[in-house]
Amino acid sequence: MVAHGGGAWLAYFTSMEREEAARAGAGGVELVHPADFGMETLRREGKTHEEILAAALKAAFDRAGVVPGRVALAGRLAAGIAVAMARMLEEGGWKSLSGGGLMLALRRTKTEGEVEEIACAARATVEAFESVARMLADSSVREGEELWLGEERVTVARAKALAAQVFAAHGLEQPESSIVAPAEEGATGHSTGTPERVLRAGESIVVDLFPRGLLFADCTRTFCVGEPPEELLRAHGLVLEALEASLEAVRPGVRGWTLHERVCRLFENEGFAVPDKNPGTQTGYFHLLGHGVGYELHELPSFRKTGPGTDELRPGDVVTIEPGLYDPEAGWGVRLEDLVVVTTDGMTNLTPLPYALDPRSW
Amino acid sequence: MVAHGGGAWLAYFTSMEREEAARAGAGGVELVHPADFGMETLRREGKTHEEILAAALKAAFDRAGVVPGRVALAGRLAAGIAVAMARMLEEGGWKSLSGGGLMLALRRTKTEGEVEEIACAARATVEAFESVARMLADSSVREGEELWLGEERVTVARAKALAAQVFAAHGLEQPESSIVAPAEEGATGHSTGTPERVLRAGESIVVDLFPRGLLFADCTRTFCVGEPPEELLRAHGLVLEALEASLEAVRPGVRGWTLHERVCRLFENEGFAVPDKNPGTQTGYFHLLGHGVGYELHELPSFRKTGPGTDELRPGDVVTIEPGLYDPEAGWGVRLEDLVVVTTDGMTNLTPLPYALDPRSW
Repeated sequence: MVAHGGGAWLAYFTSMEREEAARAGAGGVELVHPADFGMETLRREGKTHEEILAAALKAAFDRAGVVPGRVALAGRLAAGIAVAMARMLEEGGWKSLSGGGLMLALRRTKTEGEVEEIACAARATVEAFESVARMLADSSVREGEELWLGEERVTVARAKALAAQVFAAHGLEQPESSIVAPAEEGATGHSTGTPERVLRAGESIVVDLFPRGLLFADCTRTFCVGEPPEELLRAHGLVLEALEASLEAVRPGVRGWTLHERVCRLFENEGFAVPDKNPGTQTGYFHLLGHGVGYELHELPSFRKTGPGTDELRPGDVVTIEPGLYDPEAGWGVRLEDLVVVTTDGMTNLTPLPYALDPRSW
Repeated sequence: MVAHGGGAWLAYFTSMEREEAARAGAGGVELVHPADFGMETLRREGKTHEEILAAALKAAFDRAGVVPGRVALAGRLAAGIAVAMARMLEEGGWKSLSGGGLMLALRRTKTEGEVEEIACAARATVEAFESVARMLADSSVREGEELWLGEERVTVARAKALAAQVFAAHGLEQPESSIVAPAEEGATGHSTGTPERVLRAGESIVVDLFPRGLLFADCTRTFCVGEPPEELLRAHGLVLEALEASLEAVRPGVRGWTLHERVCRLFENEGFAVPDKNPGTQTGYFHLLGHGVGYELHELPSFRKTGPGTDELRPGDVVTIEPGLYDPEAGWGVRLEDLVVVTTDGMTNLTPLPYALDPRSW
């Protein structure tokens, strides 16, 4: 918090946050301890968690000299605590507003340091894809088209474990499971893959990885070991065409929605259902072309038609471009996703990797 | 949601939730789609996210025949959305209450199925510890007491990567980084370990793993390759004594706080600072003895003196017991943590593993 006319300070509320707070303190920010807000005393008096946090917020405002006015609440927290805080603020003469949109808008344009953090997570993601591609390339095809490595079947879990190992070695977290979705699982767009499912030759394998360091990265490739069915091969070619055309078009002044619409037209002309003409379709193309990436996996800018952050791209925006085609009945899915930072005259691709279906050609 | 006199139904709000909702639907629960609540229409009309969700909640109440009264809000969500929902409810004649405490109380006692989910995550945790112990046991000591495996130094990142690999192979997630904290990093209690830090012989290595399947598991061991300093050896003996005495005492009718106090007395008698007599100490023993584990890593029962869930343990409680001793100046820490389920006449230990400092004796 920055007080009127004073220095910056940071309050932490539990002993679990002490180390993290201390690191911030080492940067010259004054630390305020839970005891300074009388939180332990309130706890001993049997106050509820909601009452204690509301009182701490009030104490923080007092300390900062913030007088009643409008205050924007942001961040994810327990519903009851948010409501208790808003009530406390209103009783004290403040008017509480939703700060979620404000925070998203503030976080949209990335600083150089933030871009470097995303690039760092993206480099580990590239390495993870190379490892997965190598594992698939090294596998042999046995009975029932199953992929084997040595004396073990290659499962969804094994591919995820390999990626997890790379991320952990880079000090990255995976707040959510990665996606390794073969055939019918990749065809639904958002199945993360059943761990024990054995990967097979001739089927599509959608791999979508999104680890987090200080910020997230996000990248997708689709593999097929051995001979791909003709439909899959054709869809992969179209998705790659859509991706390359979109990447070529990313620059300041272009709206994400415009890029999305162009991809819809490309796929529509090839006979696929598309989301702007066939809302709710579960075959063909059924999601948006991209999204901002940063402190959250999905943030601004938005590729929607309307709403917050749907205006033109600008330098410092970090977005994914991820066209995809899916056929749940035939049991295949293709998605290719690159992560790029918008520059003054175009974009820089943070996930430079091959696009080939065949891992042996990687 | 269960309507008055009707069947159970589940509403989902975004296409991302479709698959998950479909799995619930396969269990005979009727699915309600975003379109049923007119959410897409509101979005096209340019309503804010807060307004759309508040309207959907209102529509859900109408559909369920819930008439105005008291309603408890629970779960973590964006602050602005929680406040908007509470306002909408109040305008509609409802009185919104904090449901966080209610949810925690409802989730405290685990069903057999929930215990099995935790046990499943615990089995993977046991396997991860065995892998880490084997890696440490197989490592050789080189110049500067550094641990090497083949031609590479054994780092914090490498140990974390090994655990991450085991968890991913079991289909488990790690919402937060695991802790592999050597010497001075383990001495502060809550450092998660610097990735590039090389592990050394003769130092304490605190390993705390807490993966999540449907529910969490949580377990800690402390290792020392080679000859431990005398102080560390003594502290390890005391922590093990505290753990074994506490495990022996876990049964219905005993309060977590009582167990915590006993451990404080044991450590105090041996000359260590303890949290009930020396609040805020950063050396000796400075955290609680345990906590409930379930859908969240920390839930009820609580081992605090007062507050929600601090009453006697009962069958179906799943708790950790985790005494520890730390000396930031000398640069060592010891923590041993088992995860147990309280039974009618005692407890079942879900993390049966050796306690030895020396991984070669595992």
